[in-house]
Amino acid sequence: MSDSIKIFDTTLRDGTQGEGISLSVEDKLKIAQKLDELGVHYIEGGWPGSNGKDIEFFNRVQELNLKHAKVTAFGSTRRKNTKAEEDPNLTTLVASGVKVATIFGKSWDFHVHTAIQTTLEENLAMIFDSVRYLKSCGLEVIYDGEHFFDGYKNNPDYALQTIRQAQEAGADWIVLCDTNGGSMPEEIFEIVSEVKKQITTPVGIHAHNDCELGVANSLAAVRAGARQVQGTMNGYGERCGNANLCSVIPNLQLKLGFACISDEQLESLGPVARYVSEIANMHMPMNQPYVGSAAFAHKGGIHVSAILKHASTYEHIVPEKVGNKQRVLVSELAGQSNLVSKAAELGLNLEQQDGKAKEIISRIKDLEHEGYQFEGADASLELMMREASGELQEPFVLESFKIFVEKSADRPVSSEAFVKVNVNGESMYTAAEGDGPVNALDNALRKALLPFYPDIHRMHLSDYKVRVLDDKGATASKVRVLIESRNFENEWNTVGVSSNIIEASWHALVDSFRYALIGKSSIERESLDPRPVGLVNH
Amino acid sequence: MSDSIKIFDTTLRDGTQGEGISLSVEDKLKIAQKLDELGVHYIEGGWPGSNGKDIEFFNRVQELNLKHAKVTAFGSTRRKNTKAEEDPNLTTLVASGVKVATIFGKSWDFHVHTAIQTTLEENLAMIFDSVRYLKSCGLEVIYDGEHFFDGYKNNPDYALQTIRQAQEAGADWIVLCDTNGGSMPEEIFEIVSEVKKQITTPVGIHAHNDCELGVANSLAAVRAGARQVQGTMNGYGERCGNANLCSVIPNLQLKLGFACISDEQLESLGPVARYVSEIANMHMPMNQPYVGSAAFAHKGGIHVSAILKHASTYEHIVPEKVGNKQRVLVSELAGQSNLVSKAAELGLNLEQQDGKAKEIISRIKDLEHEGYQFEGADASLELMMREASGELQEPFVLESFKIFVEKSADRPVSSEAFVKVNVNGESMYTAAEGDGPVNALDNALRKALLPFYPDIHRMHLSDYKVRVLDDKGATASKVRVLIESRNFENEWNTVGVSSNIIEASWHALVDSFRYALIGKSSIERESLDPRPVGLVNH
Repeated sequence: MSDSIKIFDTTLRDGTQGEGISLSVEDKLKIAQKLDELGVHYIEGGWPGSNGKDIEFFNRVQELNLKHAKVTAFGSTRRKNTKAEEDPNLTTLVASGVKVATIFGKSWDFHVHTAIQTTLEENLAMIFDSVRYLKSCGLEVIYDGEHFFDGYKNNPDYALQTIRQAQEAGADWIVLCDTNGGSMPEEIFEIVSEVKKQITTPVGIHAHNDCELGVANSLAAVRAGARQVQGTMNGYGERCGNANLCSVIPNLQLKLGFACISDEQLESLGPVARYVSEIANMHMPMNQPYVGSAAFAHKGGIHVSAILKHASTYEHIVPEKVGNKQRVLVSELAGQSNLVSKAAELGLNLEQQDGKAKEIISRIKDLEHEGYQFEGADASLELMMREASGELQEPFVLESFKIFVEKSADRPVSSEAFVKVNVNGESMYTAAEGDGPVNALDNALRKALLPFYPDIHRMHLSDYKVRVLDDKGATASKVRVLIESRNFENEWNTVGVSSNIIEASWHALVDSFRYALIGKSSIERESLDPRPVGLVNH
Repeated sequence: MSDSIKIFDTTLRDGTQGEGISLSVEDKLKIAQKLDELGVHYIEGGWPGSNGKDIEFFNRVQELNLKHAKVTAFGSTRRKNTKAEEDPNLTTLVASGVKVATIFGKSWDFHVHTAIQTTLEENLAMIFDSVRYLKSCGLEVIYDGEHFFDGYKNNPDYALQTIRQAQEAGADWIVLCDTNGGSMPEEIFEIVSEVKKQITTPVGIHAHNDCELGVANSLAAVRAGARQVQGTMNGYGERCGNANLCSVIPNLQLKLGFACISDEQLESLGPVARYVSEIANMHMPMNQPYVGSAAFAHKGGIHVSAILKHASTYEHIVPEKVGNKQRVLVSELAGQSNLVSKAAELGLNLEQQDGKAKEIISRIKDLEHEGYQFEGADASLELMMREASGELQEPFVLESFKIFVEKSADRPVSSEAFVKVNVNGESMYTAAEGDGPVNALDNALRKALLPFYPDIHRMHLSDYKVRVLDDKGATASKVRVLIESRNFENEWNTVGVSSNIIEASWHALVDSFRYALIGKSSIERESLDPRPVGLVNH
């Protein structure tokens, strides 16, 4: 049997069934791009028959030109007593333009009677007709046997009949689903082993985590012969989530010797997991296996003294293999060389021996301790490094800002900002309104800088994200703000952290403008005429 | 073989090694009391040899008069080349007054050489002497073979020799530890099976979650004959945590037919898990198996319509068996049936035929289109449904609010809020500062309501989340704010949406206070004397 396992990611479909997760089309496209880079084999993008947002995704995903992954759309078998060719769910699936269709059908006799309320025979015909129709349209077809394990436990003959229908109709894969997540690993192993004896079509596993066994059940199925694993990034999904691919992949590859993705792709697992959690705006648990920030963090004194002698005393793998790193919670030893190479990339002279690299590392560590995260904020990191290397000329200096927000009875809220900055010794005081306090700040700062830097009109903020870092303090918690900005040529990201959301936003906003103005010289104020409307000089 | 499994809880010892966890003696005593009520058999309270806080715990825990659980103290084998009787670590353990001692020793030859740097023979003597000494003091002795599985994989003969020493010295239990959490369930099964052939002392398992297999590995060990399971509540512990007893216990008892605790005790699992997370001040993940708030929450329309026909269509157990309950999430993915069942859950009369349900659904759809999301905001949904059914008396009415945020040069930001509300025809105007604008609003609103509703001091906001809905508008985008609030008994969630983050926060904040005050009548202002400090009446 092959030792190669196909990874089927359903973050964009089953993952969004999780409480608290809601992804825009833009979010889904960004995640699809990263999943492709990670090397998953299938990306299930959504259910085009269920909403318009998913149809838009399937239209736009074709423009991404993914390299590895096949995009697949989800749907159900045809409705009872209809023709597959006329079933709107199936025709929409075909119309979505994908080359791979994933459809689910009922395996559990109880569900046939209770949920869809038809006969066992009609359900078999629904499966056969639907798979046959999709195959006749030239699609690769993945058949998901919903509740297969519960069905098998209740009526093994009938459960096997359902997947035989899918096989006879030409399905390319038969995926066995533990939809309710209630099965134990031994049951999964035994049932998959039995199925492998009965059918020749390649088999996959789709497990849920209701017993905290989603990963274990996926491994048990592979051990029994399954060669496709369905799951989600960070285990997102309905109720307790789906099998967590961030644990399934390294377990299969590093522990059990199966081939899923390349070693290089595996080294990007941590960054991709964090990226997805940022886009989904879901808190990433520190203690998440393999990819969490505490997964290789050592606290106990005995552990720390032993890992300093030899890392493998208390580490089951080398953290870098999954894009993570060791952290010693007492005295940190970190990657000075990373920083030096980053500086070289920026054309900065930051030799280890001159002490600057050390100074920057210590500054980064302080800031990360405060909640900064530079992974998603290259521009802020670059500004800090240019500052440390003595190369940065500040394009402006803040003297003060004020914000005023007011609401009376049923009148809409009004937001105003007042900004005083100093450019080349000249003070500029501006006022602006906005759609909210941060938008008002953005408008006021832009107004203040425009006379000195007319090019500033070419840049705009394209994304604004807020993340509460420590939920214990609720409205007094620290927040991290990430801002993405663009001009016609580039895109850059900046970050700010504070327990005051306005201050955090201000830091990220100012970094965005500073970055845009690097290397630009300001115009002499005298040369400007007429002055921009609404400008208050002070 | 017996089908009874002893549960050994180490939340208070190994659990506190987790990043972000720190428990006072008071906290530990409260948790010990709850663990005893839950019915665990052993409570490992700490390491008296390592700090004074743990010694105080062992003194004071004796006053609790626990009913079920035996309290045990943790320590290591004697140091190399010393006498057990004179080893301060062991004598402190005896002096702690416990009746059960748990000591760990080295099983892995690599560790003997690298970490404690002694000979293999001396390590065997350390194990034997230490167990023998503790037995001679009349204690029950649990011997933890640290890194047993890694040791066995590297040198099976030596690993077996170490536990034979413990057996010969009279240990009551031999617990095999997967200290680094890197083993696979089959390895655990095979090695425990082999150990069971070699020794007669009862065997236990201590697993970690580094491969997301802590629960699966514990179950594999039980299948191979282990009869004690060590773990922690909510899986707290170093790195990725210990085996999560909140999943181990129901799996053993409800799925595999082993006896751990009584059915009645199992019904308190959810409340105890939440209690421990509150005391430990750790966020409890919604999607935590069995006990999380989303563990039996249904979002997809197909799932919802099926569970309304029969709950077991999409639920692997009856949630009440583990002290949890079914929840139906109302969201864009679902339909009218979700809402009617939600109303019934709240005791509201919202028949489909009288048009109110339709009206509310259309209102929800409008709000969801604006960016509201009610699946994470039960309380806001309930308020809206009570409003629609004509049952809601507003506890207060907003007249106005103002917010002022100011920053000058290097001085920290200041945030102030001014709130004017009307309660029963009386207007109340208050001012407050805060850590940010929303915190200032919270403080000012609380101050305004306190004279009318003194109970308001019992509630606090416990989580605050901000989600930018449409990143295209950047700082002018719509944001959704979710607030989680608590009092001593309950937890509730509210939502607000606006392109102004302050207004969105205000909506969520106001809903939180409204929900807290449902059914409460306000105090007549005249009866209040003295007035709360800082109150401005207007």
